[in-house]
Amino acid sequence: MINVSVLGYGTVGSGVVEVLDTNRDSINKRAGNEINVKYVLDLRDFPGTPIQEKVVHDFSVIVNDPDVQIIVETMGGVHPAYEFVKEALEKGKSVCTSNKELVAKYGAELLEIARKKKVNFLFEASVGGGIPIIRPLNQSLTADEIEEITGILNGTTNYILTKMTDEGSAFEEVLKDAQEKGYAERNPEADVEGYDACRKIAILTSLAYGMQVDYEDIYTEGITKITDIDIKYAKAIGASIKIFGTSKKVGNKVYAMVTPMMIDRNNPLYNVNDVFNGIFVRGNLLGDVMFYGKGAGKLPTASAVVADVVDAAKHLGTNIMTIWSSKKLELASFDEASNKFFVRLSGDKNSLFEQVKNEFGDVKEVTAGVDSEYAFITDVMTESEFKEASQKFDNMVSRIRVGF
Amino acid sequence: MINVSVLGYGTVGSGVVEVLDTNRDSINKRAGNEINVKYVLDLRDFPGTPIQEKVVHDFSVIVNDPDVQIIVETMGGVHPAYEFVKEALEKGKSVCTSNKELVAKYGAELLEIARKKKVNFLFEASVGGGIPIIRPLNQSLTADEIEEITGILNGTTNYILTKMTDEGSAFEEVLKDAQEKGYAERNPEADVEGYDACRKIAILTSLAYGMQVDYEDIYTEGITKITDIDIKYAKAIGASIKIFGTSKKVGNKVYAMVTPMMIDRNNPLYNVNDVFNGIFVRGNLLGDVMFYGKGAGKLPTASAVVADVVDAAKHLGTNIMTIWSSKKLELASFDEASNKFFVRLSGDKNSLFEQVKNEFGDVKEVTAGVDSEYAFITDVMTESEFKEASQKFDNMVSRIRVGF
Repeated sequence: MINVSVLGYGTVGSGVVEVLDTNRDSINKRAGNEINVKYVLDLRDFPGTPIQEKVVHDFSVIVNDPDVQIIVETMGGVHPAYEFVKEALEKGKSVCTSNKELVAKYGAELLEIARKKKVNFLFEASVGGGIPIIRPLNQSLTADEIEEITGILNGTTNYILTKMTDEGSAFEEVLKDAQEKGYAERNPEADVEGYDACRKIAILTSLAYGMQVDYEDIYTEGITKITDIDIKYAKAIGASIKIFGTSKKVGNKVYAMVTPMMIDRNNPLYNVNDVFNGIFVRGNLLGDVMFYGKGAGKLPTASAVVADVVDAAKHLGTNIMTIWSSKKLELASFDEASNKFFVRLSGDKNSLFEQVKNEFGDVKEVTAGVDSEYAFITDVMTESEFKEASQKFDNMVSRIRVGF
Repeated sequence: MINVSVLGYGTVGSGVVEVLDTNRDSINKRAGNEINVKYVLDLRDFPGTPIQEKVVHDFSVIVNDPDVQIIVETMGGVHPAYEFVKEALEKGKSVCTSNKELVAKYGAELLEIARKKKVNFLFEASVGGGIPIIRPLNQSLTADEIEEITGILNGTTNYILTKMTDEGSAFEEVLKDAQEKGYAERNPEADVEGYDACRKIAILTSLAYGMQVDYEDIYTEGITKITDIDIKYAKAIGASIKIFGTSKKVGNKVYAMVTPMMIDRNNPLYNVNDVFNGIFVRGNLLGDVMFYGKGAGKLPTASAVVADVVDAAKHLGTNIMTIWSSKKLELASFDEASNKFFVRLSGDKNSLFEQVKNEFGDVKEVTAGVDSEYAFITDVMTESEFKEASQKFDNMVSRIRVGF
């Protein structure tokens, strides 16, 4: 029997207990051993529930119990999750977590402790919810040098953009609806400003290149400025607007960013809609692969955590090698990143045409029946070139990077 | 240093050597050791090439060399691949193969030998080419009970169906073009009759349920009867025709089949076109995930084989548990499988309407401007119910299962 303890009995934590219970037989078979939940750490009691006897309020009970081999951390937030996980690993327990903030910030350090202690620190659920992406990156795409990772990594913002597209509604309206349905948090900042996607692309990029990517270094732009009119233009040319977390290797430089992107049907992520996530990976020999599924939700996320528990159970006493050192990966300057840009200027095309040509070169006009605007897509230019040209226009209504 | 030997220097085998060479540094880092190709077994010599010194014609040289720890089998076909792989495993060498015929037929037995000998038998490349699917099924989706696996598992037939759809051309015409381009074999039977997809869905189903699925038990229907007129109808209702390998668990029964299917835009496989493969998996808690990428081709397939080599190198002396016993999984009778059906009858709707209603119940007419035909989609019915009803019509031009 292998004893597991769950830290935090919120949505994901209670999901973990439910998954272990629902699929007990098949999970035990796959783990090659019986998995038992010994303790649940939470501030609350849960009288009258099946876990009432297992609840403890003091982490030291768990971490000092030599019978506990695996700890599931589903509290979220960096503190005290970091201190708890670190102590657990140091005391020779494997840890499985869904906590992207923790992994993005302390992944390299915690992996190193796990390696030294011959235990495992696993975090499949921290990116893409139920979609297998961490283990494939770590164990399947090992013959390739990764040239690009681009993902729709946040279900809430993808839901909002999908609804805006399908219904022609404004951002604020859809956000309110999403909050009422429980798809968006009361405080939606982490999602709509791209912070959540930023931590996730930091984790994926660290794993792809085996070095620490600090999420603070990643240029991050959310979807709060995307309007129904932007989407109207996108639809007029058969495109859609998504928010991508991306990292790309160009020569020896790695660029990483989180930004809204206008993409067309040829992009494999074009059809990833609603709360679904999709993660596209390009290998130098493999070509393109994509992983798709529910990026959030109680049971999909808990399923990924439990898959880690099964893996930890199969590897008691052996560390599964993960290349992610604490050596910092210096990202290339965002100013040098290059893209096409979709631009909307207020005013009349005829009066703007010459100036646009002078500043942006030959552009491709986009029309969507919007009055008093001149909208176009530029050729590929760097961020700094674009910034410089933009400063000449105080009538710029919006600009969105273009991925086709 | 870990010594690898490659059996068969054809497309995939030479690709393996190329992948190991091109990405040497990153592969060695991920493997935690230097990977060296010691021998290449082939009937031919390759004078003047970098492998000329490594070529041997006698398998016993390789299998009896104690320095060889990992064998890559890329010969294809069941014999002598089976005898070679078995002997290699018995002599304590891990084997990585791209050979779906071998895995479908002898997977359970070879895995059992590997388990006993504490080595590994790995076959990521046998399904989906470069797409990670075997390892995710085996190691990532372990918290779930698998309810369905549906895949576009054969790139050649997907290419043919895509071209027929895009260009409105007939099957024979597109096949000829595909053969000229090297996308289809001179003898295309294994692809167009569905035999290749059949072995692949047999492997995936065996892994999902941990028991042996004999591919001979799987109802298999190819695409040779799909016509440009069928596709015209599909397009008229916004659907497309794909060939799917599918297995589904309904209650305690598992159904498996390979057949063309008419699907609509809501199916995540709808946009998997050209030579791409897509594999959709539904878990009872996880929900739906999909894996997408190049299902064939020299380097993508070789990349998957080399990922197995890296995994074998990381697990020298330890067996990676795979649940696939030799206990036979008795598939449910195909007669009891149920679907909707798209049906075309020659003749006049008015004169057929009553008889159709009597035999098939209420149907939904499909029109595509084809003269002298009555085409419709039935409600859900079992294969045997459909067969019985069909026998009343000697004017049935075609029938295709419908997945929406």
